[in-house]
Amino acid sequence: MDVLSTVDVVVGYSTYIDLIHPLVDGKEILRTGMTREVERVEAAIGHALDGKLCAIVSSGDPGIYAMAGLVFETCKIKDISVASTGSNNMAPGDPEALQIEVVPGIPALCAGAALLGAPLTHDFAAISLSDLLTPWELIEQRIEAAARADFVIVLYNPKSKKRTWQLEKAQKILLKYRDKHTPVGIVARAMREQQDVHVVSLENLRTVDVDMQTTVFIGSSASSRYREFMVTPRGYSKKYEI
Amino acid sequence: MDVLSTVDVVVGYSTYIDLIHPLVDGKEILRTGMTREVERVEAAIGHALDGKLCAIVSSGDPGIYAMAGLVFETCKIKDISVASTGSNNMAPGDPEALQIEVVPGIPALCAGAALLGAPLTHDFAAISLSDLLTPWELIEQRIEAAARADFVIVLYNPKSKKRTWQLEKAQKILLKYRDKHTPVGIVARAMREQQDVHVVSLENLRTVDVDMQTTVFIGSSASSRYREFMVTPRGYSKKYEI
Repeated sequence: MDVLSTVDVVVGYSTYIDLIHPLVDGKEILRTGMTREVERVEAAIGHALDGKLCAIVSSGDPGIYAMAGLVFETCKIKDISVASTGSNNMAPGDPEALQIEVVPGIPALCAGAALLGAPLTHDFAAISLSDLLTPWELIEQRIEAAARADFVIVLYNPKSKKRTWQLEKAQKILLKYRDKHTPVGIVARAMREQQDVHVVSLENLRTVDVDMQTTVFIGSSASSRYREFMVTPRGYSKKYEI
Repeated sequence: MDVLSTVDVVVGYSTYIDLIHPLVDGKEILRTGMTREVERVEAAIGHALDGKLCAIVSSGDPGIYAMAGLVFETCKIKDISVASTGSNNMAPGDPEALQIEVVPGIPALCAGAALLGAPLTHDFAAISLSDLLTPWELIEQRIEAAARADFVIVLYNPKSKKRTWQLEKAQKILLKYRDKHTPVGIVARAMREQQDVHVVSLENLRTVDVDMQTTVFIGSSASSRYREFMVTPRGYSKKYEI
């Protein structure tokens, strides 16, 4: 919020601009639809190179399946010199360079976990099921590896209108390594309107429960339900008397 | 902060209580040292069962290698009935039960990633190198699996005064699968005093650079350095003209 109050231009996906509207009233606003990320980032960099202070907004944390990577990816391809704003203490870059600051946020994996209880208290892997930019073979290989090594697994982008079969395929791989009663937490729109939270067993994971705004938490072999919650113990009870 | 202002009792590790001291002045405060987590949680639950509003504070996010899991683990072992405060919309539990709300935060993996640039923009795995509560064989298996499947890997608790060899062992495993020039981001005390951020190559990762307050980010095969930053692309440039 502090950053938003200082900038001249705010760039973002329309839905997110609507969510923060009261905070950005009176600013120059550039909003575009889904899949227009490249266009948004190029426009933002253009404004910044013109000397304007420009913020690109994402939901959750900008570094997790969000816009921070694309900003750097674009600058690198276009050979635009970049430097940190000095908020970190790495070696200072070119003072003439485009200054970039990434402001961290609360990612969907933390917001969702908090609503479910404590599903992530041990090692976990985050995997996006979107094969728009990543070959499905690599996604499958990662699901397989994470399942075999007993990570809790957080699935982002489990399903969209056009991508409908990926979650079922993931479930099949997971059932090779995990008990069918493994708890699976399903969180849609965490901390937003129409929030939806429930826990099912791996065998009952139905794709009907999820959409693009849903995050899916697959328990490890140590995860369990306790009352309405989903919990992965850190392991204290093995070592200490509780 | 809103939650802290409403509670009667605040329980936490001494270092974290010091960090938030201005916010909790005048409250009943229970602070204990490292490795006293079980004691802290039991005390907090005791206060809550006595009818007091009680907050347990962690740094970062309470659900990632922090205290949320131990609260549920303890209630389960002691068969204390628990229910959510209604901030989520799962089926309501026993109204007589201990009400628990987990308040999400910004985890070290997001704070550190923001300082490094964008190392986590693709799939990643979080692994703690602490073998106090987890057998080293399982940790090693997870490093191996995550390395083979080309995840970015975030290592928590890489080293302490007593645990000195784990990071070097992890590095050896990683070098079997990753190029020796793979960028590794090292962030200590992100956004706190004495913050320290730097990027080295995997072959030059020295345990001397790290301590208990350090998070280590191992790049995937797609990660690279750009100027002072560490970046893992999402893959837009493969599909779109940038």
